[in-house]
Amino acid sequence: MIAGTTDSEYVNIIVEEGVSSKNPVILEGFPGIGLVGNIVATQIVSELKMKQIGTIESRLFPPITVLYDGIAYAPVRVYEDPQNDFIVILSDILIHPMIAYDIGKTVINWAQSLNARLNIPIAGIATMREQRSVYAAATGAEQLNLVKDKAETLVTGSISGIAGSIMNESHTSKLPALCLLGETQGPTPDPRAAARVIDVVSDLMKLTISTQKLVEEADQIETELHKLAEQVQGAEQVETKGPTQVMYG
Amino acid sequence: MIAGTTDSEYVNIIVEEGVSSKNPVILEGFPGIGLVGNIVATQIVSELKMKQIGTIESRLFPPITVLYDGIAYAPVRVYEDPQNDFIVILSDILIHPMIAYDIGKTVINWAQSLNARLNIPIAGIATMREQRSVYAAATGAEQLNLVKDKAETLVTGSISGIAGSIMNESHTSKLPALCLLGETQGPTPDPRAAARVIDVVSDLMKLTISTQKLVEEADQIETELHKLAEQVQGAEQVETKGPTQVMYG
Amino acid sequence: MIAGTTDSEYVNIIVEEGVSSKNPVILEGFPGIGLVGNIVATQIVSELKMKQIGTIESRLFPPITVLYDGIAYAPVRVYEDPQNDFIVILSDILIHPMIAYDIGKTVINWAQSLNARLNIPIAGIATMREQRSVYAAATGAEQLNLVKDKAETLVTGSISGIAGSIMNESHTSKLPALCLLGETQGPTPDPRAAARVIDVVSDLMKLTISTQKLVEEADQIETELHKLAEQVQGAEQVETKGPTQVMYG
Amino acid sequence: MIAGTTDSEYVNIIVEEGVSSKNPVILEGFPGIGLVGNIVATQIVSELKMKQIGTIESRLFPPITVLYDGIAYAPVRVYEDPQNDFIVILSDILIHPMIAYDIGKTVINWAQSLNARLNIPIAGIATMREQRSVYAAATGAEQLNLVKDKAETLVTGSISGIAGSIMNESHTSKLPALCLLGETQGPTPDPRAAARVIDVVSDLMKLTISTQKLVEEADQIETELHKLAEQVQGAEQVETKGPTQVMYG
Amino acid sequence: MIAGTTDSEYVNIIVEEGVSSKNPVILEGFPGIGLVGNIVATQIVSELKMKQIGTIESRLFPPITVLYDGIAYAPVRVYEDPQNDFIVILSDILIHPMIAYDIGKTVINWAQSLNARLNIPIAGIATMREQRSVYAAATGAEQLNLVKDKAETLVTGSISGIAGSIMNESHTSKLPALCLLGETQGPTPDPRAAARVIDVVSDLMKLTISTQKLVEEADQIETELHKLAEQVQGAEQVETKGPTQVMYG
Repeated sequence: MIAGTTDSEYVNIIVEEGVSSKNPVILEGFPGIGLVGNIVATQIVSELKMKQIGTIESRLFPPITVLYDGIAYAPVRVYEDPQNDFIVILSDILIHPMIAYDIGKTVINWAQSLNARLNIPIAGIATMREQRSVYAAATGAEQLNLVKDKAETLVTGSISGIAGSIMNESHTSKLPALCLLGETQGPTPDPRAAARVIDVVSDLMKLTISTQKLVEEADQIETELHKLAEQVQGAEQVETKGPTQVMYG
Repeated sequence: MIAGTTDSEYVNIIVEEGVSSKNPVILEGFPGIGLVGNIVATQIVSELKMKQIGTIESRLFPPITVLYDGIAYAPVRVYEDPQNDFIVILSDILIHPMIAYDIGKTVINWAQSLNARLNIPIAGIATMREQRSVYAAATGAEQLNLVKDKAETLVTGSISGIAGSIMNESHTSKLPALCLLGETQGPTPDPRAAARVIDVVSDLMKLTISTQKLVEEADQIETELHKLAEQVQGAEQVETKGPTQVMYG
Repeated sequence: MIAGTTDSEYVNIIVEEGVSSKNPVILEGFPGIGLVGNIVATQIVSELKMKQIGTIESRLFPPITVLYDGIAYAPVRVYEDPQNDFIVILSDILIHPMIAYDIGKTVINWAQSLNARLNIPIAGIATMREQRSVYAAATGAEQLNLVKDKAETLVTGSISGIAGSIMNESHTSKLPALCLLGETQGPTPDPRAAARVIDVVSDLMKLTISTQKLVEEADQIETELHKLAEQVQGAEQVETKGPTQVMYG
Repeated sequence: MIAGTTDSEYVNIIVEEGVSSKNPVILEGFPGIGLVGNIVATQIVSELKMKQIGTIESRLFPPITVLYDGIAYAPVRVYEDPQNDFIVILSDILIHPMIAYDIGKTVINWAQSLNARLNIPIAGIATMREQRSVYAAATGAEQLNLVKDKAETLVTGSISGIAGSIMNESHTSKLPALCLLGETQGPTPDPRAAARVIDVVSDLMKLTISTQKLVEEADQIETELHKLAEQVQGAEQVETKGPTQVMYG
Repeated sequence: MIAGTTDSEYVNIIVEEGVSSKNPVILEGFPGIGLVGNIVATQIVSELKMKQIGTIESRLFPPITVLYDGIAYAPVRVYEDPQNDFIVILSDILIHPMIAYDIGKTVINWAQSLNARLNIPIAGIATMREQRSVYAAATGAEQLNLVKDKAETLVTGSISGIAGSIMNESHTSKLPALCLLGETQGPTPDPRAAARVIDVVSDLMKLTISTQKLVEEADQIETELHKLAEQVQGAEQVETKGPTQVMYG
């Protein structure tokens, strides 16, 4: 019984050639804290050499096209790996919370039309710790069990943004969903957190997805941050010597 | 005779399996002052072991999923106790007054389709008193009579927010409704006020709903507030000794 | 010939049992300056013991229910006195100018469907004078003539708000309308101004509508204001004696 | 070929009895700088004793009714002089630029349904000069030729507001239109600029439209401004005597 | 497979007589940084003596008509050179990013209905360099090859605004598109950047489009800026002599 109608009039999924996967798993990688969702999806698409099969568009997305090797791509794209019945939705743009509902509704409606067996929205979770654990929340205990050796259960609290909307719609539509949250410390891109999430996805999907590139990026970023920290410390020491010397920014 | 149409296009009630209650009573627990509505509904659902039968969703709700034991739930849910012909709508999120009208209209339309015999929106009412009385307002004297020994009549004034909208829609639709308002002192969660409201509901529904857990929570909160008050008093005495020491906030 | 369509999608008049008046007069009492419209309508409904036959509702009204003797009423209601072919629309809430157009359109469409013979929107008009005259403006000289011994014609200027919208819609629909404006001095409720307007309505409708209660209220308010003025004057004298004593507000 | 649809859902022209003019000229007088459009239309309607045949209404107009001799009129009205196949649209209210598009579209759709031979939107144009020239811009050289002895061509630049929207819609609909702009110096009502525009309209329409009243008003306004200027000058001389005396505003 | 609908309800292309080009190339010249798109389109329309065949209109465009030789034109127009199967969309107004999506969608839907073989949105790209290179981005390597000798590939990054939306829609609709970006230094009109873009278009279209006029304009602008720079330098020298002399703006 459904009272009333709340159509998702602002968001379109356009997949012209159709989907060949049977009961696919759909992973959603939208950028959030630590850009975890975007990095995870980008790396998986690249490692599995997934094929772009469509785009998601909306009047409410910012009017921006993204370039790779001079080729323009819509900023939110749908990729498929038909051998593994695996679909990835990858967003290169931050999306206003105002349309999280519409994206969630559109994605889950589409997932239902494909008889998807699982949705995996990826998010980041900020803590004060050095660790890079992966947390999980799900629509049911069965989905939590799938990752019980690799991820900690996020027992209580809430998940907001697009991952939250996807979980809500999954709950309401009785569609299995598993949200994986990469532990990170702040808003800067965190390839190491993304690598840890990918490990959980690899295990879950029984796939081998290399995170080598992400770990190298993380090492590089950390080395640079370390150098910068030393310079700042040095600069601070210098500063104390000259009273007129001031550092900005 | 109805001139014009004001459909409730922003709010959906989704109850897939249908409702088995006959002429149910529907209690609406949305958070407001003292979180009375939310606490009342949560406790009733828990004590009566009510079964979730659906959700309410809206593009205008914040995009957030709530977690209990790692399981994600939509933030506004519908529960049923078919033995007692009792339905509870429970919201874990604050809702913008802008959609109070739509929620009221959707809930009352749905209540009519179920031949509900009574709606009981729960609210809080802030006073300066230590007491925790329960106040009542209704669409008719008959409903006020149902609780005349347990609740004071809120003779004059007005009720705003979702409870107000539900009362308006009930009035217009000639559907019996009884608003119960738990007396509280401010915005902090007030389990004792909720316990008092539950006592009225128990009596009205001829049900035994324990409020033991709420009373314990209230005792605990009050003990902590008492300790805090003593510490603050101590701090204030210390303050008077040091002229430069100032406490903010 | 009508080019285009501007439906009034935001406002509903709900009158389930229908109207038994023939060619009724419809008086609209929305609160404005001096609350004149609201007080006039409340007093007429009370004195003529009019029966509530419906409500007006809108997504754009504030979500509030009003209580009389513990019973909840929708804030904008429709009353009828079938013996006198008289309908009163009474609003207990201030209404945003943004929906004045929709209310005007909905009310006049409904008035046409009832073959109403006259609409009487009530408003306040602020002047600097002590007097409590009643001013009139109308869709035609014929309507002005109906009250020419009791009300001054508001020769030039403009009327804004809901009364203005009702006059516009009446003008466009060629429906007779007579706006009565009670002279008042400011935003405080002015029962005396309302009483004067009721005298004009009584005369026009050939009805006896007592304004005794309003005059008593006005006397009481004025006595209190007089006392307050004396106190303030006293306080001001005291103030001049003590240089640090200052009164605010 | 028309791709897409942009209906004008916010603006209505209501002309119940229909129009008897054949291939009429339609003059649009909306207030703008110097109130030129409003004054021109008001004077023409008055001098030609045109009959009101309808109104234009919109949810987006301010909710205001205008009074003439105690009679309430909708603020935007349509008048006709059937002998001269002449229609005037007269607005007594300033209109938000946001609905200029909708007014332009509605008016031009209506003009097309009437097989109008010419639209004449009136506007003001602010310059620093004492002169009161009339400028013209048109959808074609043919229309500019009609007034080439009386008005200067506004060779380059742009026209914004309702007159601009009417010109755009005329251009797109291939309907002849001629915009007449009265030269004025600022925002104060300028009857002399309006009189000069009327002279051009009279010549164009081969009609005698007296501007005597406007010229007298202009003389009166200018005399008063002259007196005010002398007083201000006097005040300034006084000022120079007292160093602390300052005039604002 | 298309899930959901996102109609472009805000933007219309009106081309009454139809298009005679077969598989046309469509160049879109909307103003942006350096006004490059607008200048390119204006010059091409003028040099190829293209014929206006339509307009683009929208409720969300500013209400403004543009004048050339006293004739009023809609601000966004469609021109055709049927001999060369070439269509140019030329905008004289800045357009809010909020409707970039709708313009992109409407233009690309229309391009598809015409079986267009290529879309060429023009944009500006700001750098710190003196150079006036032309950059290219495309929906495929094939389109980049068309200009590989004349334009540098914009390898990575993003393009925002209307050109970005047109690229996104082309990507999603699998319609070939090539964005040409004229290198410029800032927001002032840059005819030299436009001339360089036109050279690339000429080469691509195998057309001779003179840029003589633009180069002369550029020389003139640069001479004036040079003079101004000298004056400012002079002024600055003067300034250093008098401590109280300050130049603003």
